[in-house]
Amino acid sequence: MTAAATACVVGIGETQYTRWGGISDRSELSLACEAITAACQDAGLGVERIDGVASYAYDSNDPWLLEESLGFEQLRFKGMVWGGGGGGSYAAIAQAVAAIQSGQSNYVAVFRSLCQGGGHRYGRGYEVPHGRNFLTPFGMLSPPLMLAPLAQRYKYEFGITPEQFGEVALVCRDNASRNPRAVLGGRPLTMETYLNSRIIADPLRLFDCCQENDGACALIVTSVERARDLRRKPVRILAAGQGSEPGWSSGGLGSHSMPEASYAAGAGKRLAEQLYAQAGITRDDVDTVQIYDHFTPFVLMALEAFGFCGRGEGGQFVSEGHIRWPTGRLPLNTSGGHLSEAYIHGLNLAVEGVRQLRGESTSQVAGAEICVVTCGVSAAILGA
Amino acid sequence: MTAAATACVVGIGETQYTRWGGISDRSELSLACEAITAACQDAGLGVERIDGVASYAYDSNDPWLLEESLGFEQLRFKGMVWGGGGGGSYAAIAQAVAAIQSGQSNYVAVFRSLCQGGGHRYGRGYEVPHGRNFLTPFGMLSPPLMLAPLAQRYKYEFGITPEQFGEVALVCRDNASRNPRAVLGGRPLTMETYLNSRIIADPLRLFDCCQENDGACALIVTSVERARDLRRKPVRILAAGQGSEPGWSSGGLGSHSMPEASYAAGAGKRLAEQLYAQAGITRDDVDTVQIYDHFTPFVLMALEAFGFCGRGEGGQFVSEGHIRWPTGRLPLNTSGGHLSEAYIHGLNLAVEGVRQLRGESTSQVAGAEICVVTCGVSAAILGA
Repeated sequence: MTAAATACVVGIGETQYTRWGGISDRSELSLACEAITAACQDAGLGVERIDGVASYAYDSNDPWLLEESLGFEQLRFKGMVWGGGGGGSYAAIAQAVAAIQSGQSNYVAVFRSLCQGGGHRYGRGYEVPHGRNFLTPFGMLSPPLMLAPLAQRYKYEFGITPEQFGEVALVCRDNASRNPRAVLGGRPLTMETYLNSRIIADPLRLFDCCQENDGACALIVTSVERARDLRRKPVRILAAGQGSEPGWSSGGLGSHSMPEASYAAGAGKRLAEQLYAQAGITRDDVDTVQIYDHFTPFVLMALEAFGFCGRGEGGQFVSEGHIRWPTGRLPLNTSGGHLSEAYIHGLNLAVEGVRQLRGESTSQVAGAEICVVTCGVSAAILGA
Repeated sequence: MTAAATACVVGIGETQYTRWGGISDRSELSLACEAITAACQDAGLGVERIDGVASYAYDSNDPWLLEESLGFEQLRFKGMVWGGGGGGSYAAIAQAVAAIQSGQSNYVAVFRSLCQGGGHRYGRGYEVPHGRNFLTPFGMLSPPLMLAPLAQRYKYEFGITPEQFGEVALVCRDNASRNPRAVLGGRPLTMETYLNSRIIADPLRLFDCCQENDGACALIVTSVERARDLRRKPVRILAAGQGSEPGWSSGGLGSHSMPEASYAAGAGKRLAEQLYAQAGITRDDVDTVQIYDHFTPFVLMALEAFGFCGRGEGGQFVSEGHIRWPTGRLPLNTSGGHLSEAYIHGLNLAVEGVRQLRGESTSQVAGAEICVVTCGVSAAILGA
């Protein structure tokens, strides 16, 4: 039996997702407003009643412009999870839960808005000096370059094959084929095409890397009690949180200073155990997973961290077909994920998690009751 | 009787405070680490046990560098209050409370670190495009220029005199004279000097404006229960939060779009009423106030918002001597405040609030039991 949840998701909203630059006449503010408004409409809640916002990763939106634009009656909580996107996305859901549980907000809009056509492109290096200055001299200029060494070590240490990384890319592309929102929905991918794709940063091939996209999505979080007055079936947040440790980091030093070869051995495993305990479930209760797929190897590591297979067994696990829809026992990234739906910096995977537990996914897992959404060091466990 | 608090401050720490550029061989990371370490020592807590951090105003520190530098065993909460400093400083304390109450952290370090010698100077305009682009075309290039119109309207509407603004500056300078940490401690200020000081942005004179400083400070927040195992007398957080509304903002559009002339009439008053109710106190229970004194007029407005006098009566209230130490009934900014101790973006006023309730201020209010720390739209009510 799951633990009693105090907070839940009562609305989800998304803009159109496009290739980066696809909606370059829009601003991140405009996209954020559209997604939050859509999520409120889904919930049946007037947008003026939002009294908390949570985002992450140095979100470019000024909260006072959001406040003016959307006309919140009183904005009592303005939370940004500090640090990168992978660690931030599901921690922003945790911040919303904290705001609700502490009584600091009644309705929190968790959102992320990206318009890489108008600003920074994730796949590029950084022009402005910041903490990554410690990495730049070593040529670690962009996320694939920063994270490839970790994937290389993981591959070496556990004998992972290219086909096993490729399985993640193929599963996501297949799921995208059923999702009309998916940017790469109409472009089937074969293992041959995957294996022939060019190396971006060894061992990462082109199709191991997520897209760069424009778009926004939002989730409305409130208390289980307040949800009773709203129109949608609430999706309970059984647990949410983050947990990093020295030696690991949110995409920063991690790539070369991590003492362990994978998320599975360190911070991610510890976090998973804490959240399973909080949610009152075990890995066997999980019906579907949505895992932060910026690069395919990290999906395997997160599967290990969350105990779906043993350490170093992520490759074998996926090659046995377990993550495929509808036949596998743990369908993964059922919207197509970052690799094939869109890279909205983690949060669109949480939206898909909600959709699964409402029974509304385009790759619906029959009878899905529990969904884990995670990037390894931040995670949410959702319950129908 | 005050409400039962669940969270409290168990440690405070500060670096040296200097004029901007005074410690330009230091980084904001280095200053932050020093302040957090000092606060942990004060609490009698190993710094590795910190499992949450909270800051605000787009803090430049990368949390993964903090984590590496200080060796936190597991960092489970990384909160940044989104938006400016005035609204953020006491809302960061509220975030820490939410993290504690929700069980997402056991020990949160709330901190702010400024090294304006090495980065952006607050008194200067912004070089990088951001939300203030809406203000720049109107010549509102820096905080005094952005906020002067609001002060001007307040002065006009309620007949506030220059001497009444000046009283705030003089009280702060006098308090600084007893505080060895105060950057302007050794420089007495007379009303004549105040009135003869040059206009920066009418009606703001030089001495209406706070300093630009380098330095850092930190507070350790934990549960009342965990505080029993630590060495210092805990200072209870009776209430903390923020609350802004459209038309007001954290220093952004506020200066020209605010429908009301002062904090007192809108967002600030509503927040004050909510926090008084939460703390189970009235204004009459308050022994001392620490008010965000970036510019003197806003101290008068916050006194009104928190009900210490009626709307438009802030000038008269201070000219009657009520905010002076030790004779007034509501001594203000007893460390010297931003105007004369240092501008650490609000948080050093919270440190002074803790000191007052421990009986350790250099301008100690005899028997102080309740302290309000506020910038108008974020606030904490602390109890001995």
